[in-house]
Amino acid sequence: MRHGSLDADELNRAILAVTPSDAATPPRQTAEHDDAAERRARAVWTGIVEPGDGTAGALIAALGASVALRAVTDGWSPRRITHAVRSQDQADGWIDDLEDDGEKALLRWLPRLDSTSAVASVWLAAHHRATLIIPGDRAWPVRLNDLGAHAPLALWVRGDPARLTETTRSISLVGARAATGYGEQVTVESASALVGRGFAIVSGAAYGIDGAAHRATLASDGTTVAFLAGGVDRPYPSGHDSLIGRIVETGVVLSEVPCGGPPTKWRFLQRNRLIAAMSQATVVLEAGWRSGSLNTAGHAAALGRPLGAVPGSVMSAASAGCHRLIREYGATCVTSADEMAQLADGSEADIGLFTGGASSSTGLTSGEVRVLDALTTRSGRDVRDIARRSGLPVDDVRSILGVLQLSGVVDERQQGWIYVTRKS
Amino acid sequence: MRHGSLDADELNRAILAVTPSDAATPPRQTAEHDDAAERRARAVWTGIVEPGDGTAGALIAALGASVALRAVTDGWSPRRITHAVRSQDQADGWIDDLEDDGEKALLRWLPRLDSTSAVASVWLAAHHRATLIIPGDRAWPVRLNDLGAHAPLALWVRGDPARLTETTRSISLVGARAATGYGEQVTVESASALVGRGFAIVSGAAYGIDGAAHRATLASDGTTVAFLAGGVDRPYPSGHDSLIGRIVETGVVLSEVPCGGPPTKWRFLQRNRLIAAMSQATVVLEAGWRSGSLNTAGHAAALGRPLGAVPGSVMSAASAGCHRLIREYGATCVTSADEMAQLADGSEADIGLFTGGASSSTGLTSGEVRVLDALTTRSGRDVRDIARRSGLPVDDVRSILGVLQLSGVVDERQQGWIYVTRKS
Repeated sequence: MRHGSLDADELNRAILAVTPSDAATPPRQTAEHDDAAERRARAVWTGIVEPGDGTAGALIAALGASVALRAVTDGWSPRRITHAVRSQDQADGWIDDLEDDGEKALLRWLPRLDSTSAVASVWLAAHHRATLIIPGDRAWPVRLNDLGAHAPLALWVRGDPARLTETTRSISLVGARAATGYGEQVTVESASALVGRGFAIVSGAAYGIDGAAHRATLASDGTTVAFLAGGVDRPYPSGHDSLIGRIVETGVVLSEVPCGGPPTKWRFLQRNRLIAAMSQATVVLEAGWRSGSLNTAGHAAALGRPLGAVPGSVMSAASAGCHRLIREYGATCVTSADEMAQLADGSEADIGLFTGGASSSTGLTSGEVRVLDALTTRSGRDVRDIARRSGLPVDDVRSILGVLQLSGVVDERQQGWIYVTRKS
Repeated sequence: MRHGSLDADELNRAILAVTPSDAATPPRQTAEHDDAAERRARAVWTGIVEPGDGTAGALIAALGASVALRAVTDGWSPRRITHAVRSQDQADGWIDDLEDDGEKALLRWLPRLDSTSAVASVWLAAHHRATLIIPGDRAWPVRLNDLGAHAPLALWVRGDPARLTETTRSISLVGARAATGYGEQVTVESASALVGRGFAIVSGAAYGIDGAAHRATLASDGTTVAFLAGGVDRPYPSGHDSLIGRIVETGVVLSEVPCGGPPTKWRFLQRNRLIAAMSQATVVLEAGWRSGSLNTAGHAAALGRPLGAVPGSVMSAASAGCHRLIREYGATCVTSADEMAQLADGSEADIGLFTGGASSSTGLTSGEVRVLDALTTRSGRDVRDIARRSGLPVDDVRSILGVLQLSGVVDERQQGWIYVTRKS
C-alpha cells in the first residue's frame, strides 16, 4: 500500500530554494544525489512528526531519513521495518524505541503524509527567505545532537545560518512572561555583560525575560538566537513581530516546525528542550512557581547542562520558581554575569569562606585578633597586661606584637603598646 | 609552686547565690560536696580561659573541673598533668589536644589565676540576679556538648534558666547589623511564624536582623535566647539595653564569659559558635559579603547543623553574603517560615518538579496536551482531523477525548469536538 504521493522533482526544486550557501553546508562524503535526497526527506519529516518524536528519530538514525520516509510512504510492514533496522550497525540502542512504539508511530504519521502540504511549506519557507539546515551541515548546532533520538530532524532558519557557528559559547537566558522590572533589569545587565564576554544569547522570543534578553543582546551587538514553537514565518507572540524581525537581521530565528505550522502548547514545551540543548548553560532569571521556564530548566537538568537561577525577593511571586529551582533541584544560585559565565565555562570560584578558622573574614590569625582586642588606640599597655587581657602566653604576645608592628597595625610608644589604626 | 589563692569558702558563699533552683539542677549521682566543688571550679574556669579554649575543655573533660583547676593552681608539671590525664578512661581523643598545647596553655592561664577577681565576678553576677549552669544541669542545653572540647565550660544566665528546657525545638536567626527594611521584614515574619510552629528563636542581640528576631519573638509570646559576647551584666550593644532587659523577663540571656567581662572581637566570633550549636538549624536572613554572620554560618556548617540562607535582590549588598552561602557553601535557599521549619526538622518536601514528563506543570499527559492543542472553543472538529493536527493515531485520539470529556474539559457537539474551558 502506498500512502501519500511525494513528487520528488517538485520537492527538489523547492528544497534548492531553501538550501543555504556553501558557508553553511559541509563537504559531504556521500554523493550529491544522496545529500539532496536526505535533505528533501528531512524537510518532509519535519511536517509529519511532532517535535521530539523519538521513534522517528530512532528510525531515521537507523535507516537515514530518505529510506525511513520510503518505508512509511511505501507502507512497509512493521516487521519489515524492524528487520531493516536490525540489519544496520548503527541501530544499537534505537531498537527498543522502535519496538515499543513502531506500529502506533505509523498510525500517527500516515494522516500527515501529504506531498502537497510538504511542497507548500517549503515554498512558504523560500518565500520568507528561510533556509533548512540538517545534521552534518557546517551550521548545524552540534550540541543539539545530545538530545539523541529526540534531536530535531532539521531546523528551519531565518537569518544567516552561518551565524550559528558563532554560538559555540552561548548561554540560554529564559524566564517568565510576567516579568517584573527587577527581572528585566537583571536580564538586560546580564545579557549585555555576557555579550562582552563573548557569549551568544539563546532564548524563546516570548514577552518578559526572553524579550529583554534578545533586546539587550541586539543593543550590545551580540549574536542572539530565538527558537520559535511554530514556523519561522509566524512571529510569535505577534507583539514581538518587529523584535523577531531585528533578530533575523543580525542573529538567527529557528524552528523545527515547518513554515505554516502553528505554535501549540506541546510545541512550546518541546521548543524548550532545544533552548536548553543549544547552549552551554541555562539561566532562569525570573519564574513563577509554575512558570513554563521551569520546563526549560528541567530539560537542561535532564541533559546534564549547568542550570542557574537568579534569586530575588522572597516576597516576589516572580522569583518563587527560581528559588524552587535552587532549593529543590540543585540549580546554582547566580547573581551576576560573571557567575553565569563561570557556570557555562564550568569554573567555579573557590574562595574558601570557612577555611582559615573563625577569623578568616578579617585576614588575621586568632592570636592577632585576641591581641588587638587587648589594645586600645589611646592608652599604652605592657606585654604582661596584654597577655592577661588576651588570655595568651607572654611569649606569644611578644611575637604577635612584632608581626603586627611590621604591618603597622600596632606600635610601641613610651607608655606601652597601642593600636595604631582604628578598630573595626 | 602555688599560683593565685582561691578562697574556697568565700567562693562557695558566692556560688550559692548564683546556683539556680531545683528546677534547673539535676538529681546528681555524685555527692553534694563534689557537685559544689565542680560548680565552683567551673565558675573560676570561665574567668581564666578565653571562650573556645579546647585545651581547657580537654583537661576538664579528663580530670573534672575541680581537679583540673587544682592542677593549675598547684603548679603541676606538664608531665604530671599528662600522666593524670592518661590514667583517665575518658581521656581518649583529648590527649592530642593536651600534648600539642599543654605547656603553652599553663602559660596563658596563669596570669588570670586570681581568686579576688573570680569572687568579684560571681558576686557581680549575684547582684544582677544571674545564675550559673553547668553541663549536667537539667537546664543545660545539651546540643552545646556537640562542640566537644570547645563546648562552654559553664554558662552565665539572666532570666529563668528553666526556660532553656523550652528550646528543644529552636532555630537561630542571624544576620547583618546593617540590615535593610526587606531583611528586617522577612525576619519579623519568619520569627513570628516559627514561634507559632513551636520554635524558640536564638540570636545574638545585635542591631539589625538579630534585634528584629528577638523583638518579633517577644511580640509573639515566644521563647527567645540571646547569647552575649561579654558578661550578661553588660548589655551590648548599649542601644539594646531595654531589649535585652525584656528578653530577661520571658526568655534567657546567656554568656560563657563571667560578669564584668568585656565583649571583644574574639569573644564575638566564639559567641557565634554557641548560637550555631544551640539550635537545630541556623538561618542567615541578610548578610553582606563579609558579614560576621557568615562566621556563625561557618560554625553551623562545621557542626553539621542544617544551614539556611534567605535570598534577596542581586542588587542588594545586604543579600550578597546569603547568596554566597547558597552558591558556594551549600546553604539551603529558604524563603518562608515553612521552609525554615523543614530545614530544622530535616524534612525536605519532595514535589518532583521534573518528574512526569514535559507537561508536568499542567497536570496533563503529553497526549492530552496535544489533543487539546488540536481543539478550539468555537469550531467543532472530527476525530480524524484532530488526529492529523495532533500527530496522534486516531484510536489514541478517541480514548484521550473520552478521558477529557469525563473531566469536562472537552465535549462532543453536533459540529464535532470542542474545547469547553478556556485554553490557558
